[in-house]
Amino acid sequence: MDLTSYASIIGKKVEQFIYTVVSGHPKKLYEASLHYIKAGGKRLRPVIVVLSSKIGGGSEEIAIPGAAAVEVLHTFTLVHDDIIDKDELRRGVPTVHKLWGVEMGIIAGDLLFAYAYKCLVKAMDYGVPSDRVAKSLDALTEAAITVAEGQALDMLLPEMPNASVEDYIDMVSKKTAALFAYSAKIGGLLAGADNALISNLFNAMMNAGIAFQIRDDILGLIGDEKVLGKPVYSDLREGKRTILVIYALKNVDENKKKRILSVLGNRDADVNSLREAAQIIKESGAIEYADSLSEFYANKAIEIVENVKAADTEALNMFKELVMFMIRRNY
Amino acid sequence: MDLTSYASIIGKKVEQFIYTVVSGHPKKLYEASLHYIKAGGKRLRPVIVVLSSKIGGGSEEIAIPGAAAVEVLHTFTLVHDDIIDKDELRRGVPTVHKLWGVEMGIIAGDLLFAYAYKCLVKAMDYGVPSDRVAKSLDALTEAAITVAEGQALDMLLPEMPNASVEDYIDMVSKKTAALFAYSAKIGGLLAGADNALISNLFNAMMNAGIAFQIRDDILGLIGDEKVLGKPVYSDLREGKRTILVIYALKNVDENKKKRILSVLGNRDADVNSLREAAQIIKESGAIEYADSLSEFYANKAIEIVENVKAADTEALNMFKELVMFMIRRNY
Repeated sequence: MDLTSYASIIGKKVEQFIYTVVSGHPKKLYEASLHYIKAGGKRLRPVIVVLSSKIGGGSEEIAIPGAAAVEVLHTFTLVHDDIIDKDELRRGVPTVHKLWGVEMGIIAGDLLFAYAYKCLVKAMDYGVPSDRVAKSLDALTEAAITVAEGQALDMLLPEMPNASVEDYIDMVSKKTAALFAYSAKIGGLLAGADNALISNLFNAMMNAGIAFQIRDDILGLIGDEKVLGKPVYSDLREGKRTILVIYALKNVDENKKKRILSVLGNRDADVNSLREAAQIIKESGAIEYADSLSEFYANKAIEIVENVKAADTEALNMFKELVMFMIRRNY
Repeated sequence: MDLTSYASIIGKKVEQFIYTVVSGHPKKLYEASLHYIKAGGKRLRPVIVVLSSKIGGGSEEIAIPGAAAVEVLHTFTLVHDDIIDKDELRRGVPTVHKLWGVEMGIIAGDLLFAYAYKCLVKAMDYGVPSDRVAKSLDALTEAAITVAEGQALDMLLPEMPNASVEDYIDMVSKKTAALFAYSAKIGGLLAGADNALISNLFNAMMNAGIAFQIRDDILGLIGDEKVLGKPVYSDLREGKRTILVIYALKNVDENKKKRILSVLGNRDADVNSLREAAQIIKESGAIEYADSLSEFYANKAIEIVENVKAADTEALNMFKELVMFMIRRNY
C-alpha cells in the first residue's frame, strides 16, 4: 500500500478513537476542544506512531491509542500556540480562542492535554503490558516538556538580538521536531522494540522534523495563502525569528536591517512594508541558505533511516516515504 | 505525631522532590513555573496522598512522587486560573502572568501539567509496580479532565441566569473537590489498597472538598484580606457564582437583585457598591444557608471516614484530623 492511502486509513481510525474517548460535559468545552480535529489535518504524527510500532514488531492495533495520544497532544499545543501568537486562522477555520474566547481556549487546551494521556492509557485495553504503557506515558511526558520549552524559546528568541542559527535549531528541535521524534519512540515502546531501533527512529524523525520546520519557514515567506491556511507574512507580523529572519538580520546592511526590524512583530505593519521586508529577506540569500540547511538535516534523516532493520519491510518503506514527504521541496 | 508537624515534614520532602524533578531551560520558563511553589501553600493535597498510601498499607516513601504530582498539577491549575480570572495576587505574591506575561503564564502552566506526570512516573524508581503506576497515571488524568470541566462550568455559570444549587455543587465537585478526592485515590493506588477502601477515601475527600469550597466562598465575602492573600470582594468583581451569590439572587427582591448584578463581574465597581452588594447578600441569609450546606457535606465526609478500617491507625487519625481541618469554621 502507498503512504497516502495508508495515512488516510490510519487518520480515520485515529479520529474515530479520539471521538470515542474525548467526550463529556460541558458541551461548549468539548466543542472547542475538538474544533481543530474536526477541521482536518495531515495526521502525520499518528502515522509515525503506527509505522514505528510495525517496524518494531508490533501491530497497528496496539499503536492506535498512542497515535491518538500524539495527535491530541499536538492539537493542544496548536490551541495554546494560537492564543500566544494571536492567530485568527488555522486549517482554514477561525482559531479556537477566536470562536470561544481566550479563557475557554486555555481550558480547551488543558483538557486536550489530559485526554492525550487518557488515549495512551487505553493501550492497556489492547493488551499492551503495563510496563510498556508506563514507559510510553513517560515518553509522552518528555515530549510535552520539550515542546513547552521550545514554545518558551520561540517566545524568547526575539529578545535575543544576536540569536544564532544554533539557537534557532535548538528551538525548532524542541518546538517542532521533538513531537515527531517522540511519536516514533512511543510507537516503538508500545511494540516493545529494542532501544537501538527506537533510538534510530527517534533520531531520523528529529532530523526530518528540523528539515520540515525550516521548509515551513520558507513556505511562510513565499508560499500560497490558500495552501498555508493562514495569511502570508504572518510570521513577520508576529515577529517570529524564523531561520530566514535570523540569516537576513546577520547578512544585510544596517539600512535594510532597520526595514526588516520595522515590520517584525509590528501587527500594524501595512502590506507594502511587509512585501518590502520580504523582498529584502529574499535578496539576502536567506532562502538559499535555509534550503541548504534543510537539506543537511534531510540527508541526516535519510542516512539514519537507510540503516534501520525492520520487522516489517512494508512499514519501513512507508516510514521512508514519510521522511521523504516531510523533507520534500514543495515551493 | 500531630497533623501540623507531619504536614510540614511532608511539605518539605515534596518541595525537595519537586525542585529536583522540575528543572531545565530556558531559565525564565522554569522561574515562572516554580513561582507559586516557592511562595508556599498548605500542601494539603500531598498530605492526603501520603496518608492515603499509609492507610492502604503503603509507605510514605512510595507516595512522595504522587504527592509531588498532585501539588504540581494543582499549581498548574492555579497559574491558568489566575490568567482566566485576571487575578493579580496569589499567596501574597504577584501572579505568574502579572510578572512574566500571559503568554509565558500559559506555557508555564502547560509545563507544570507535564511535570505532574513526570513526578508520578518516578514512583517506578521507588519500586512501585508498573501496573500500579499506570493506574495512578490514569487517576491523575481523570483528575485533570475533571478539573478542566469544572473550570469551564465555573466560567459558564454566569451565563446561566437560573443557575441552581445543584449546578453549583456539580461545578465545585469538579473544580475543587475532585483533586482532593483523586489525591486520596492516587495514594491508595500506589499502595495497592483494595478498591472499597480507595472508594471510601475518595468519597470522604469529595465531600470534605465540597464543604471546603463552600467555606472558602464564605471567607471570600467576610474574610480578612491578609489571611486570604488576595483582595476581598474579588469573587464579586470577577462575577463568580459562589453559593452565596446563587442563594442571594434567588431570595432577594428585584431591586436588591439589580444591585448585586450591577457589581457582579463589573471590574470597575467601586468599593462602596461592592460593600453594599456584600451587605445585601449577608442580609439575605446566604451565609447561614451556605454554612448549613457546608455542614451537610462535612457530616457526610466524617461519616464515611469513621467507617474506614486502616492498615495504619496513626495515619487514619491524621486523615480524620485533616478532614476536620478542611471543614472547620474559620470565620
